Amino acid sequence: MKFQTPVIIVNFKTYLESTGQKALELAKNAEKASKETGTCIVVAPQFCDIARIAEAVEIPVFSQHIDPIKPGNSTGHILAEAVKEAGAVGTLINHAERQLKLSEIEAIISLTREKNLISCVCANNPNASAAVATMRPDIVSFEPPELIGTGIPVSKAQPEIVNNTVKLVRKVNPDVIILCGAGISQSEDVSVALKLGTQGVLVASGIVKAKDQYSILRAFADATKR
Amino acid sequence: MKFQTPVIIVNFKTYLESTGQKALELAKNAEKASKETGTCIVVAPQFCDIARIAEAVEIPVFSQHIDPIKPGNSTGHILAEAVKEAGAVGTLINHAERQLKLSEIEAIISLTREKNLISCVCANNPNASAAVATMRPDIVSFEPPELIGTGIPVSKAQPEIVNNTVKLVRKVNPDVIILCGAGISQSEDVSVALKLGTQGVLVASGIVKAKDQYSILRAFADATKR
Amino acid sequence: MKFQTPVIIVNFKTYLESTGQKALELAKNAEKASKETGTCIVVAPQFCDIARIAEAVEIPVFSQHIDPIKPGNSTGHILAEAVKEAGAVGTLINHAERQLKLSEIEAIISLTREKNLISCVCANNPNASAAVATMRPDIVSFEPPELIGTGIPVSKAQPEIVNNTVKLVRKVNPDVIILCGAGISQSEDVSVALKLGTQGVLVASGIVKAKDQYSILRAFADATKR
Amino acid sequence: MKFQTPVIIVNFKTYLESTGQKALELAKNAEKASKETGTCIVVAPQFCDIARIAEAVEIPVFSQHIDPIKPGNSTGHILAEAVKEAGAVGTLINHAERQLKLSEIEAIISLTREKNLISCVCANNPNASAAVATMRPDIVSFEPPELIGTGIPVSKAQPEIVNNTVKLVRKVNPDVIILCGAGISQSEDVSVALKLGTQGVLVASGIVKAKDQYSILRAFADATKR
Repeated sequence: MKFQTPVIIVNFKTYLESTGQKALELAKNAEKASKETGTCIVVAPQFCDIARIAEAVEIPVFSQHIDPIKPGNSTGHILAEAVKEAGAVGTLINHAERQLKLSEIEAIISLTREKNLISCVCANNPNASAAVATMRPDIVSFEPPELIGTGIPVSKAQPEIVNNTVKLVRKVNPDVIILCGAGISQSEDVSVALKLGTQGVLVASGIVKAKDQYSILRAFADATKR
Repeated sequence: MKFQTPVIIVNFKTYLESTGQKALELAKNAEKASKETGTCIVVAPQFCDIARIAEAVEIPVFSQHIDPIKPGNSTGHILAEAVKEAGAVGTLINHAERQLKLSEIEAIISLTREKNLISCVCANNPNASAAVATMRPDIVSFEPPELIGTGIPVSKAQPEIVNNTVKLVRKVNPDVIILCGAGISQSEDVSVALKLGTQGVLVASGIVKAKDQYSILRAFADATKR
Repeated sequence: MKFQTPVIIVNFKTYLESTGQKALELAKNAEKASKETGTCIVVAPQFCDIARIAEAVEIPVFSQHIDPIKPGNSTGHILAEAVKEAGAVGTLINHAERQLKLSEIEAIISLTREKNLISCVCANNPNASAAVATMRPDIVSFEPPELIGTGIPVSKAQPEIVNNTVKLVRKVNPDVIILCGAGISQSEDVSVALKLGTQGVLVASGIVKAKDQYSILRAFADATKR
Repeated sequence: MKFQTPVIIVNFKTYLESTGQKALELAKNAEKASKETGTCIVVAPQFCDIARIAEAVEIPVFSQHIDPIKPGNSTGHILAEAVKEAGAVGTLINHAERQLKLSEIEAIISLTREKNLISCVCANNPNASAAVATMRPDIVSFEPPELIGTGIPVSKAQPEIVNNTVKLVRKVNPDVIILCGAGISQSEDVSVALKLGTQGVLVASGIVKAKDQYSILRAFADATKR
């Protein structure tokens, strides 16, 4: 399945439950839920796991980060060409746990455009979300860091802030895809997020740490239909 | 082949000539030269390429970097467990192009010990090399940044500094493996490095950018025998 | 003199010609040129020199940076309250030589609003300038890093880019003050900058490294009248 | 009074109780306690306050940080020449709240030697302390970050670790001055620290946040005599 909205992006982070063999299994469950429902689910595994997952599943695979570099003498950095050859079709940028300088964000957005990768830039509050949207990435994802990993969903805890973010972002960029994240753990959180004007969610622990990852994925995918 | 000295570590950096399919080919050439000569050659590819290379070759594979983190909520970071499950047996740390805080270096060395990964910490001058050696990594690699990528070999351009580094390091740590790097491009540079008291070299562009990567690898491996 | 436009902001950077006693002399020359012409000249000395300069002159003094921190247990950081008590009335933010994460820029802008300090956020290209403007600082200063310190003035080398930046910024923020900088070394560069739609310039080496700092300051101040 | 051991270094951090006018008062109290007891007390105020304090007191003034830069085009950085001209005679380096890359620490130690500034490098555990000592600064200060600001004194909570640090440091550097810090809040903590083989303490909130700063300073100074 190609990338489309509504979308659920699953950030695998560096949980053991989503590393190596377990990352592959999680990706396969995401693919299953996606195929059954027709909802686009994107997986964003660790760099080491991109190649094996991209080979094994037909849903879009994103990198969790890329660096604003050209091929050459960089050690320990993430090259756009490398994640692309490994099979990634997009990347997260500026996640709250991997924050970047403004000039780096701008350079990476340009790089993704040049390399034909989908760019999903995260921002931690309404003003920063609007700032990001001005630079015309494909996706802006609004995540209040204080809710990340808490199970308290942004869509229920801060509905007016999500709504306000959507408005601020739309004012400067009518086309960008808007997601929200942080604390998303129930299927209802997904449908509320969509009602608030977003086109999907960015989720991590709500899926990765679930006892039955497939069931939650399936419930989230179903929730985008409501 | 298990890790042993003398050793040649090939840092693939982010060159296109050592990304994806080309990384795999370079690793196979390194394996061939290693098997033919009995000299240990380590390959350090990009994160995305570790799994495929580790599956395909029997020589040691290192990561170019790992982060000082435990499994959990980190996005876009390099988890020791992930590179290990992908097949890496060691890692570069604090390369001149991926410099770290002192406390991070110390934490990563502890982490590698705990995870049974070989630690190769880079340092940019004699004093920093001795400081690194005090923290008891497996390997210290001395690389003057001003020579990296120049083709002017540290072993010939600064023989007395290499020698001085070996002495300073030995004073605080009699056991650590000492390498030198930067500008190594001729097989003679390798044998000179060993004569100066090191137990091998860390090399990148000298191999990666060579027209015939295998021939240079083979010549370097032979040079450790002289 | 209170802050007003058109404005010339002189970034003292860390040149010896603008450190300590020499910083004080440069600030006095700036005050002289400002009083004679009625043009607002702002000086941005190093932190150590703020107090003495703010005591000695009546023109606005800016800090070169502040950190996004509250009073408390931070060591070696720049506290808004400290630069304010020393006499600064504003601050540069995100200069090309002191780049910040997007979330830090956003936090510092909020902090300056709260502490009643004038915020001048620098950006390195048109897109980043618009992104910055979205967060509603008092001033956006556009400086292409490749021209900084060259003596090749942005206003003459890239007039269409300056103009484009003004348009992009105005689209998202009709009120913000727009400056440009980099390479400004002749009084003509100042008047051209104003004609391109900016309300002033951010200048450093063009003034600081001049043989006769006062004469250039005076010429720049005069140029804003044309 | 010149710098000598035993020594009490008071890190003013960015507390409001040690900013601006209050920083000056605290420095005067430190000077008073120092003069009355003959114990060396060093004050390390914020950059903005160095000049006024250095002019007003005769005890040594340290900077809280300096950057590894030469005079020139750096904005928002801390120039060794600037803190020196303002009156500082030394500097903290690599405080747990302002951690630096290994190569930066090495470069700053060289810089302080060249500029005749006293270097006090902080480290967060025994291994890192030994690593720092290898680079021959004037002072190594061992501070376990988990105790900073807690009021639980390192000298009482981790006496064997302080002792072990002293041994590890002495092994690689017989001459360096060794301090410990974190949680020092009672005069007894100071005398215990000295008994464990250190030559003084680095203290912050224990003094700065005290109701009667002078009394604690005096008690600490007296405690070095026991």
